[in-house]
Amino acid sequence: MHVIDGRRIAGGIEKKIAEEIAHDKPHVSTILVRGNEESELYAKLKEKACRRVGFESETIAFDEGATEKEILGEIKRLNDDREVHGIMVQLPMPGIDYGKVVNAIDPAKDVEGVHPFNMGMTLLNREFLVPCTPLAVIKILEHEGVEVRGKDVVIVNHSNIVGKPLAAMMLNRNATVSVCHVYTDDLMKYTGNADIIVSGAGVKGLITEKHVGEGSIVIDVGIVKEGEKVYGDVDFDSVKEKAGMITPVPGGVGPVTIACMLENSLRAYRGVAARSHRKN
Amino acid sequence: MHVIDGRRIAGGIEKKIAEEIAHDKPHVSTILVRGNEESELYAKLKEKACRRVGFESETIAFDEGATEKEILGEIKRLNDDREVHGIMVQLPMPGIDYGKVVNAIDPAKDVEGVHPFNMGMTLLNREFLVPCTPLAVIKILEHEGVEVRGKDVVIVNHSNIVGKPLAAMMLNRNATVSVCHVYTDDLMKYTGNADIIVSGAGVKGLITEKHVGEGSIVIDVGIVKEGEKVYGDVDFDSVKEKAGMITPVPGGVGPVTIACMLENSLRAYRGVAARSHRKN
Repeated sequence: MHVIDGRRIAGGIEKKIAEEIAHDKPHVSTILVRGNEESELYAKLKEKACRRVGFESETIAFDEGATEKEILGEIKRLNDDREVHGIMVQLPMPGIDYGKVVNAIDPAKDVEGVHPFNMGMTLLNREFLVPCTPLAVIKILEHEGVEVRGKDVVIVNHSNIVGKPLAAMMLNRNATVSVCHVYTDDLMKYTGNADIIVSGAGVKGLITEKHVGEGSIVIDVGIVKEGEKVYGDVDFDSVKEKAGMITPVPGGVGPVTIACMLENSLRAYRGVAARSHRKN
Repeated sequence: MHVIDGRRIAGGIEKKIAEEIAHDKPHVSTILVRGNEESELYAKLKEKACRRVGFESETIAFDEGATEKEILGEIKRLNDDREVHGIMVQLPMPGIDYGKVVNAIDPAKDVEGVHPFNMGMTLLNREFLVPCTPLAVIKILEHEGVEVRGKDVVIVNHSNIVGKPLAAMMLNRNATVSVCHVYTDDLMKYTGNADIIVSGAGVKGLITEKHVGEGSIVIDVGIVKEGEKVYGDVDFDSVKEKAGMITPVPGGVGPVTIACMLENSLRAYRGVAARSHRKN
């Protein structure tokens, strides 16, 4: 059994990005509404990651009670600003229509890959800016030399930013894909026959050794917080004896997800730079 | 065993549309490059369907060897024309980048639901203009009173306009979804356990009674032409004895797909009309 080291994979991606941008300064802006501790923590994590690789980064924080109009106005400003290459929106935004906000972002600056245009491009196998968690799963498998074509992949999550785009990306690579979730009758029937299991239900201990076939690959994208501790979906200690490869939580998919946001940002930077060059 | 009558379902949808637009005139334009008999036939079928419900319809035919620039110019004209509510592009277009052409269509007039923005909205469970074949499958199941939530659905097709968007739509409705294709090792393992099988591989006789569990629902979206005859993926005579419900080919999904294009057109008409009203 091999425990996948997400921090090491992320480190490799970040090192490469830092080298590539030596003389450039991609600029990433995050919009945040104050009042949620976790949300502010994530924004800081992203800022730190940007600085680590030499990006410029700012968090634009609105006070609690900020209106949709204010947020949309700020997004318009960032869209129009040629010095801004990436825009992120930190959830939750209480009382604000997230769909409307995301739709307002210039797709070319959507470094989280969540704008409908980018989602559609991902579904249509024309991946450019793709959601960061699915991209992290793909990167991890690539890094470990796992070919997904023809493999039986089971994804336990059918959310807009994880399960559905990841399913599309696995299909783009010719895996056979099953997507399970809370309405699935017999989860074990699916996971037990899988070559690769990606679980992101957010339920601690959901995936036990009984769910997993001998030698299968288990990627844990679940995040469950209990006080200061963080757990995934997978009962790591029992599953690791049976799995061929497994990601831990923390230190698995999480750091690679952040590295993928940086990679998207670099891609957006190059795209936006090319576009503004054409306009000049 | 119940044979689903696609023509009757389509007739019902078309009747409702015709009633609803009594005093309106949605206008749908199809762009076609001459030289492919099948393609010209499809364009005519679509025109006929538009006329049947009282839409205005035109086919804009380019001669063989039309350039991308000419096609893109025509799309721009149609986008800007307030009297045009729907735009379709008939494949094949030899030597022309289909992705570029589709991206050029105003998403609000994309009545085939294939623009990346609309695909993304479909994936994100904000369905508005959705691809017609997947929509037809959903409509048929709704018409037959089949609740997909919690059902095991197997889709044999992972194309951009059938398998992947249909998987997203089934997940939006909380089905458990598996997508199989030519790289799938053991198709029977998937289909044999399914409540609902949707097959669109374009391989005559791919799905036999051995693939199908007792009482399952079999939707055939395959199209295989042999001379004047048309077949689906499903070996109808053997499978119908075992299946609970089954669609024939022809007379199953095909007519409903056309009706769904009309329904999308009505939706686009209302959207475009609302938009141009706001502008006035």
